[in-house]
This record gives sequence, structure tokens and C-alpha cells, in this order.
Amino acid sequence: MRARDLAVEYPSVTLDSDALDAARLLAERRLPGVMVIDDDGKPYAILPASRLVKLLVPDYVLEDPALAAVVDEKHADRLCRALDGRPVRDCLPRERQVPPVSDPDDTALEVAALMARERSPLVAVVEKDKAGGQLLGVITAAHLLEQLLGVA
Amino acid sequence: MRARDLAVEYPSVTLDSDALDAARLLAERRLPGVMVIDDDGKPYAILPASRLVKLLVPDYVLEDPALAAVVDEKHADRLCRALDGRPVRDCLPRERQVPPVSDPDDTALEVAALMARERSPLVAVVEKDKAGGQLLGVITAAHLLEQLLGVA
Repeated sequence: MRARDLAVEYPSVTLDSDALDAARLLAERRLPGVMVIDDDGKPYAILPASRLVKLLVPDYVLEDPALAAVVDEKHADRLCRALDGRPVRDCLPRERQVPPVSDPDDTALEVAALMARERSPLVAVVEKDKAGGQLLGVITAAHLLEQLLGVA
Repeated sequence: MRARDLAVEYPSVTLDSDALDAARLLAERRLPGVMVIDDDGKPYAILPASRLVKLLVPDYVLEDPALAAVVDEKHADRLCRALDGRPVRDCLPRERQVPPVSDPDDTALEVAALMARERSPLVAVVEKDKAGGQLLGVITAAHLLEQLLGVA
């Protein structure tokens, strides 16, 4: 079993995607993060759902958590304005999480070793081409466990 | 909307659970991690799927990744022996990831502020009782985004 056989489609957005659309995608699919690809279609970063939650929380609440309890729900409904019209590139954490990259011909054990070394919950499988590479799909830790353990 | 309304059941194991069973649970449900509860039923740690992947990879492969490519698949099939019969408590990372805890009466914005401060992909909702607390459920970042954005 090679990385190309293990890779599955994984939701991705571009650096220019609307952050609110990215947040809706994460929410609807109940994902811990979304893959951000650059203008050449290569994996650029992971945008974690928790990062988007942080951007929705007003600064005055982050500074004084006690205020969170007194903000009424109607106001909370307008939180999404913090993301609306903002590109994904402006929402990435300062320390960008770059997903480790596997070759499509890597074995499951090579992918596992890469994931273990990088302590990453997922690995991007990239087919190298003249432009630098194209994202074939993603292998998550849970998916790899399934393969390594032979869970049907 | 309060934390108690947002909390959903999340797969958990105990410190004495078999690590192989925990890995199978993660694989079958395609989860990035499982909640580990202590003997009193309180949240103790998150066991990430990537940590279990690491434990499946033989030490000689972690030390020399080039060896991963030459281990044949039949051998790889026996990797699960690395977890079989081992308790979860022996499999946790040295730096234990303790999930942040919300009170059932916290508002969605209080949960969001906690998640943002702790940079955690999930928050445990714990009902305080004489024994110290009981896990009501978990709120993931994606679930909270859904609530904050009003995604139906």
C-alpha cells in the first residue's frame, strides 16, 4: 500500500478564499482544520478551526475573559463579521503550520515515520511536476492507523 | 446557548484501557484524538492519533527513515503488536495534553475565549460534583464555529 492509494480528498481553500467561507466549510464538515493551498496548487499551511474561533472572539474578551459572560447572544450573532470579506492569507497563525509532504510512492510505514517525526495529524501527498508539485490528497493519522492495524 | 447545550458525546477511554482498542476506536471513527478519563471519570488527557502512529513505528525506522522503505508489508502487518496489551497510561506523550475545562453554564463566547487562550481544538464540559467533576461532553472548535456562525 502506497501513499497514492492512501491519500483521500480533503477540503482545501486558497490564500485568497474568504475566511468566512473557510469557517463555514470547517463547521459543516466538522473538521479540525482545512488545507490551504498556494497559487500553484501546492500545500501551504493548515488553518486550524481553533484559529478561526480565536479570530471570532473580540479582543476585549480575550484580554478580560470575565467580559465573555456578559456579552449578550444577539451581539455574539454578529461575530462572523470578524471574518467576512477577509482573505484566508490574513487569518493564518504567525507560526504557519506547514503540512509534511509524502511522495505518492512512499510506503505506509514511510508515511507513518514522517508523521511521527513531525508530530503532525496529517501528511499531504504531492505528485512532483515541473511547477513544483500538485496535491493528490491527504493522509490523516486516523486513516493511517486504520491501514496499519488492518481495521476493515 | 450554554456549554451544556453545546457539549456532545465524544469517544473516551480510561487510563487502563488497551491501547490497541483505543487505536481501533480512533481508526474506525476517523478521529484526530480520543479523550482519556481518569479513575474518577474526569478528563485527564487527549491521546492524539499521531501519537499512536508513532508508537507503531519501530525505533530503528524512527532512527533511520530510509529503512521504512525496505520493511516489507507483511512485517508492517505485525506492527499492531506494539500496542496490544499495553495500557493507555503508558502511551501518553510525556507532555500530557490536558483539555481545558468549561463549566456547563458557560456561554458559547466564554467557551470560545477559553479555546482561543489555550489554542485547543476542543474543550471538555465538566459538571462539578463532590468527587471533583464528571465529564458531560466535549465541544470541538468546528462545532463551536457552527454555533457562532449560525450555520444550520
